[in-house]
Amino acid sequence: MAKITMLGTGLIGMFYTRTLHGLRGRDKVVNVYSRSPERAKAFAKDHGIPRFTSDLKDAILDSDSDVVVVGVPNNAHREAVLLAAQAGKAVLCTKPLGRTAAEALEMLRAVEWAGVFAGYLEDLVYTPKTLKALDSVHNGALGRVLWARSRETHPGPHSAWFWDPAQSGGGAIIDMGCHCIEIGRSFIGKDIRPVEAFCWGATQVHPIEAEDHAIGLVKYANGAIGQFEVSWTFRGGMDLRDEVSGTEGTIWLDHFLRTGFEMFTAAGEGGYVAEKAEQQKGWLFPVGDEVHALGYVHMFADMLGAMDAKRVPTETFYDGYVVNAVIDACYRSMKSGRWEPVELEVWRGKEEVEQVGATSASPSGKNAAVDNMSSAAGAGLILIKKEKMPDGRTKLIYKEKATGKVVEKIV
Amino acid sequence: MAKITMLGTGLIGMFYTRTLHGLRGRDKVVNVYSRSPERAKAFAKDHGIPRFTSDLKDAILDSDSDVVVVGVPNNAHREAVLLAAQAGKAVLCTKPLGRTAAEALEMLRAVEWAGVFAGYLEDLVYTPKTLKALDSVHNGALGRVLWARSRETHPGPHSAWFWDPAQSGGGAIIDMGCHCIEIGRSFIGKDIRPVEAFCWGATQVHPIEAEDHAIGLVKYANGAIGQFEVSWTFRGGMDLRDEVSGTEGTIWLDHFLRTGFEMFTAAGEGGYVAEKAEQQKGWLFPVGDEVHALGYVHMFADMLGAMDAKRVPTETFYDGYVVNAVIDACYRSMKSGRWEPVELEVWRGKEEVEQVGATSASPSGKNAAVDNMSSAAGAGLILIKKEKMPDGRTKLIYKEKATGKVVEKIV
Amino acid sequence: MAKITMLGTGLIGMFYTRTLHGLRGRDKVVNVYSRSPERAKAFAKDHGIPRFTSDLKDAILDSDSDVVVVGVPNNAHREAVLLAAQAGKAVLCTKPLGRTAAEALEMLRAVEWAGVFAGYLEDLVYTPKTLKALDSVHNGALGRVLWARSRETHPGPHSAWFWDPAQSGGGAIIDMGCHCIEIGRSFIGKDIRPVEAFCWGATQVHPIEAEDHAIGLVKYANGAIGQFEVSWTFRGGMDLRDEVSGTEGTIWLDHFLRTGFEMFTAAGEGGYVAEKAEQQKGWLFPVGDEVHALGYVHMFADMLGAMDAKRVPTETFYDGYVVNAVIDACYRSMKSGRWEPVELEVWRGKEEVEQVGATSASPSGKNAAVDNMSSAAGAGLILIKKEKMPDGRTKLIYKEKATGKVVEKIV
Amino acid sequence: MAKITMLGTGLIGMFYTRTLHGLRGRDKVVNVYSRSPERAKAFAKDHGIPRFTSDLKDAILDSDSDVVVVGVPNNAHREAVLLAAQAGKAVLCTKPLGRTAAEALEMLRAVEWAGVFAGYLEDLVYTPKTLKALDSVHNGALGRVLWARSRETHPGPHSAWFWDPAQSGGGAIIDMGCHCIEIGRSFIGKDIRPVEAFCWGATQVHPIEAEDHAIGLVKYANGAIGQFEVSWTFRGGMDLRDEVSGTEGTIWLDHFLRTGFEMFTAAGEGGYVAEKAEQQKGWLFPVGDEVHALGYVHMFADMLGAMDAKRVPTETFYDGYVVNAVIDACYRSMKSGRWEPVELEVWRGKEEVEQVGATSASPSGKNAAVDNMSSAAGAGLILIKKEKMPDGRTKLIYKEKATGKVVEKIV
Repeated sequence: MAKITMLGTGLIGMFYTRTLHGLRGRDKVVNVYSRSPERAKAFAKDHGIPRFTSDLKDAILDSDSDVVVVGVPNNAHREAVLLAAQAGKAVLCTKPLGRTAAEALEMLRAVEWAGVFAGYLEDLVYTPKTLKALDSVHNGALGRVLWARSRETHPGPHSAWFWDPAQSGGGAIIDMGCHCIEIGRSFIGKDIRPVEAFCWGATQVHPIEAEDHAIGLVKYANGAIGQFEVSWTFRGGMDLRDEVSGTEGTIWLDHFLRTGFEMFTAAGEGGYVAEKAEQQKGWLFPVGDEVHALGYVHMFADMLGAMDAKRVPTETFYDGYVVNAVIDACYRSMKSGRWEPVELEVWRGKEEVEQVGATSASPSGKNAAVDNMSSAAGAGLILIKKEKMPDGRTKLIYKEKATGKVVEKIV
Repeated sequence: MAKITMLGTGLIGMFYTRTLHGLRGRDKVVNVYSRSPERAKAFAKDHGIPRFTSDLKDAILDSDSDVVVVGVPNNAHREAVLLAAQAGKAVLCTKPLGRTAAEALEMLRAVEWAGVFAGYLEDLVYTPKTLKALDSVHNGALGRVLWARSRETHPGPHSAWFWDPAQSGGGAIIDMGCHCIEIGRSFIGKDIRPVEAFCWGATQVHPIEAEDHAIGLVKYANGAIGQFEVSWTFRGGMDLRDEVSGTEGTIWLDHFLRTGFEMFTAAGEGGYVAEKAEQQKGWLFPVGDEVHALGYVHMFADMLGAMDAKRVPTETFYDGYVVNAVIDACYRSMKSGRWEPVELEVWRGKEEVEQVGATSASPSGKNAAVDNMSSAAGAGLILIKKEKMPDGRTKLIYKEKATGKVVEKIV
Repeated sequence: MAKITMLGTGLIGMFYTRTLHGLRGRDKVVNVYSRSPERAKAFAKDHGIPRFTSDLKDAILDSDSDVVVVGVPNNAHREAVLLAAQAGKAVLCTKPLGRTAAEALEMLRAVEWAGVFAGYLEDLVYTPKTLKALDSVHNGALGRVLWARSRETHPGPHSAWFWDPAQSGGGAIIDMGCHCIEIGRSFIGKDIRPVEAFCWGATQVHPIEAEDHAIGLVKYANGAIGQFEVSWTFRGGMDLRDEVSGTEGTIWLDHFLRTGFEMFTAAGEGGYVAEKAEQQKGWLFPVGDEVHALGYVHMFADMLGAMDAKRVPTETFYDGYVVNAVIDACYRSMKSGRWEPVELEVWRGKEEVEQVGATSASPSGKNAAVDNMSSAAGAGLILIKKEKMPDGRTKLIYKEKATGKVVEKIV
Repeated sequence: MAKITMLGTGLIGMFYTRTLHGLRGRDKVVNVYSRSPERAKAFAKDHGIPRFTSDLKDAILDSDSDVVVVGVPNNAHREAVLLAAQAGKAVLCTKPLGRTAAEALEMLRAVEWAGVFAGYLEDLVYTPKTLKALDSVHNGALGRVLWARSRETHPGPHSAWFWDPAQSGGGAIIDMGCHCIEIGRSFIGKDIRPVEAFCWGATQVHPIEAEDHAIGLVKYANGAIGQFEVSWTFRGGMDLRDEVSGTEGTIWLDHFLRTGFEMFTAAGEGGYVAEKAEQQKGWLFPVGDEVHALGYVHMFADMLGAMDAKRVPTETFYDGYVVNAVIDACYRSMKSGRWEPVELEVWRGKEEVEQVGATSASPSGKNAAVDNMSSAAGAGLILIKKEKMPDGRTKLIYKEKATGKVVEKIV
């Protein structure tokens, strides 16, 4: 059983607390902090939390709590983490870790120097679908991963501070790009270095200073490409989808809008449909168990389980730091209009990696093109493609090794 | 924290134990029983259970356990439940409660006479989608429920005893119809009496004595209709879908085959895909977290939570008894080829109910047809339909009160 | 090029004419009839038709037209068809052919005695999806077909006469069950005799005399089962889906509500969305090309192509007669509450058929259960099931030939 | 009736000819050309074409044909179009128009100087779904379009010449990017100037010189953004999807892999499933009528209808030229790693356009943010967001006009 201090009483604090107290959970939030004493008190009452405070230090130093969960706005992460590290407390910090890589690095160093357990609360890597998909990828179901698209778009965040770049550190990219980038890394390989990033972003709709729509690309050292799409301008609910392509397969994940629950109502419900839903009548697409579908349940199970077992959790402060470094490069690219290097002062992954492309693969590889190549090799041909035609015949397309000419045969 | 004796080490015992021990659960299986000492020992080892036995009585009487979970074959439910009741132990019994209503009624009376807590482990009523859909229905999103279809089909069950009617009590109907019937009751109203049942069933494919495919209809006292489709002949995985129609709306639930996770693999995984999956290559449709998607997590949370709170759980032995009575009627109908009455010696729901149909509804009802009726009433017309035409005009169809003639107007 | 007389100016006449004149079509409606001279004139103007009339005989006898298309209400089919046959004209009649089998048989005999070309305009058998699915079934992709469900539900028909049983011959069954029954026959085999039918029907919502919701089952001579669901009470648009199960596979067709076109609009369009759509805002599911998706294009291509080539079209008056006979049995069953025989005075299909069940199949059949059976036969075992377990092992379930006992092995 | 000379006997020639001859079509291919006399002869026989030749000039000059359809490899478009223009023949050219904008411009000028009818055979803009979606967009269902993503990926093209950049002009971008770019233009507005393009591309899998995977962004003069994803490395069939976001709505189109036709087969079919399908067993997703779903039917109807009516078709050589100019910029960007200007020597659209963003919109616009703004204006606040919370309350987020501070209220 873990005893937890919760910092923050916004939507994220509520989702976290519900998850920790959920169903037959053994863990318990014992203290809650908010800048506003009223909100702290109300939140404690709503969730059966014994203690509450508007003093950040008191909350962190509560001698009856083992873990500090940081769920305050982005600009307050650093102070909370540093205080927790100083206090020798385990600390779990919501996403993004910092507003910049520099801030994240400072937090990473603080927890490592203090030797405290630290976890990065990147929930979307922990959705049950993502976890199972990652297993399949690790088992080779997709061959080598070539491309990972992660998309999170909705009509805009819940709390005022998100819309203010001074507090949040940016716009849609810092808010949701952090999820997408880490999902991309997870599929492509967290030990593969993100080398360069390119990003388009604009303020298309809302009367704000930050970008409300952005599209980014991240080049990895092995030739794979990550893609993210984030927007606060999307209409129709919350669109949360990932697509992954590999040499041997494809994965499509839809976490929210099309998950096998479809409802038409002419009457409406007079109630809550789902996070960021825009309608109460017509065709609706509810989610059965939101905190579960969004990964909160498996995330805290991993975090607190890792703490108990004295192992490293799946998502660490180091991951948070890498994500911030990619975001920094994206913001630079938005201005420069070109690929920008991802600057990682600390790199803990692989230095040398094999390219994903078939041309560099050994003939014993699992890639179909390569396998086929060897069978045609005797004839001085490299097989490019094999295909069934509408008339039932099979077409083979080869490159002649000697001449480089592309030829086809129908068999 | 609940301490549990698990009876049975088959697939259901495994799913139950995984669920109870899952993630950050506070509950604990402390003793496991199997007829086979080897299986009991192996299961205890695999799941970290301190005690195991092949003596049913010893398992139930274990003084350190509070709850007995019955996960043995259908023909062994009665003995286990009676022993548990006699021992004054809380008892949770897997579906179907009995092989017949008579057997179920005996179990119901045993736990009620003993005054022990008893729960009916009907997991599919507890899937997160079903729970949320039921909330919507109770909130009026569908108006009055007219029809509920529940379908469970797959290529056949896991354990040998299912295929033997002497042990299981039947075929696909007793195995899966019990889920479908209770899902139908839940949507239509558990206090609405199921009046008559009709059923077609046949042994279409497998070399067995029982039906491997059946379709049933259940008439309810309020004019609503339940429909179930169960099969051990389905190809393509496990098809687990519900559809509900009401005067104001529609709900479609897909629990398994199309839930937002799609994977193509030419390589295969060499592993487990999902319950009853038939393929390891090509397009696959995995489920992120099966025990959650199938309702086990919310079912045990309700059961153990109800026990702690001394309240009645959502699914009781009485529900199990009603379901068995409907199944009995279905088996009679399969033979007689006609509607058969659902014989309920004990009925605890409503005796008098309003019909779902608009014609009996008061003009103040929420039904659109009825609302529209009143607006046209002045003209001696009853509105039947209002519709937008492809050319943009609106068509109104009325019945003339005086003549009964149906007329239309385009406006 | 075919020159056509169109009888009827309702929605069906409009869809037919649009289809015949559609895109680069070579055919031409040259005369249009409506009871109302105004409607005939307006329709002719809208569709560029040279002649119009409110005299049925004149329309049919038009010497410049080769084909009469009957698109008038059900109670007017018989007269129109008989006149066309008498005039020696080719005649295409919309569904249902008659209001009863007796009426249909009279029409069938009239066209056969007159020796004119006659086609039954059952469009839903001609949707591009159905045609391709039927090809797959004929090629063996599903093995032997065990079950075919066809569902058509929406909030009710367009024209007043549909709602009046005296004119239409019934309610939702005669309106849409005719589609579903013929789709079922097409998948199960049009030469397999429909033996018995069972039907539930009720007037659940609308202030009418006929059934507005019905569910039917049709037993075929080979042991296969057809299922239909028809309703005028459905909310959410037009639900038009078929599901087919065979020993080797499954087909799911969605013709209308989920076809890969999804739109959310907060603004609305101020226009037509799709047939029977209920909303203009929120999530909408339009269909790109409705007359194509509903089978009209391929239906007329088959009909007119067959006429040109002097071959029999896919859907004949005989098919319409069989469908009417099944509907008659359904209406009898609704009253009697039991299976009713399908009375076919004329049967032109097979008399003796093999049962779909594996037990009657020869060991050389394609059925997996049967194939596996032979491999285990040496050991005196009949294989019932083979399955991959979550722990990666494989379970085999056998029946011992000698004892009939069901046993399992894990390998 | 149009009489057509078909140049080319590959897959595209076959699809075009099938479309032109399809169902009850009035048009006729009267002459077919292939470099190979054998292929020309075989094609003529297969499709009932009276004349065939391996002489390009003879084919074009055929005095009995009115229209020349150019379906030869990309490097042969220019010669064919110039000859047709010279001969005063109407000419329809497959996509892409040229290998470069320079080549396309030469062709554009040739047909305009000759005054012949010319159409650009960009089929995917003509899919029935796209046509209906464009109608909805033009009717305002999406408000102002902010983003259009078009994706076409599959395991690689059919004919050898596609894989050879010397013949095709590039790789996946020239092959499929041309579709995606024109789809993006169509949704964003063909009169809105594409200003800059950015592109990533790589040869990830195949042993070829050209890119087999690319992602591109196109900035439009009004602030909207187009996005394309093209790949010859995709596994699982042909992925052909478009997504469009606007201030008031969203459109998702799936043209191929998920269109409401799902089939599981353990037996296989021994036949053709769909273009670029990779499997014959397991879950398959056939398309009912491919030439229709891919837009060929509506494309030729528009082209030949426009020719008959002496109007301009929807897709012109000018459109083909603009697409080539965007592709040129993409190839430059792939090398430079930055945004590259789209160089349009000839621009026929708008010069001055309003930005899509709300901040520039007048308060009378349809944008919700803007509408809400005015209601709060009295209080010196700009409304940023309005949202329903899980607890049922509503949250409003404002910017204070005077201070720029972001504040929230819960009501």
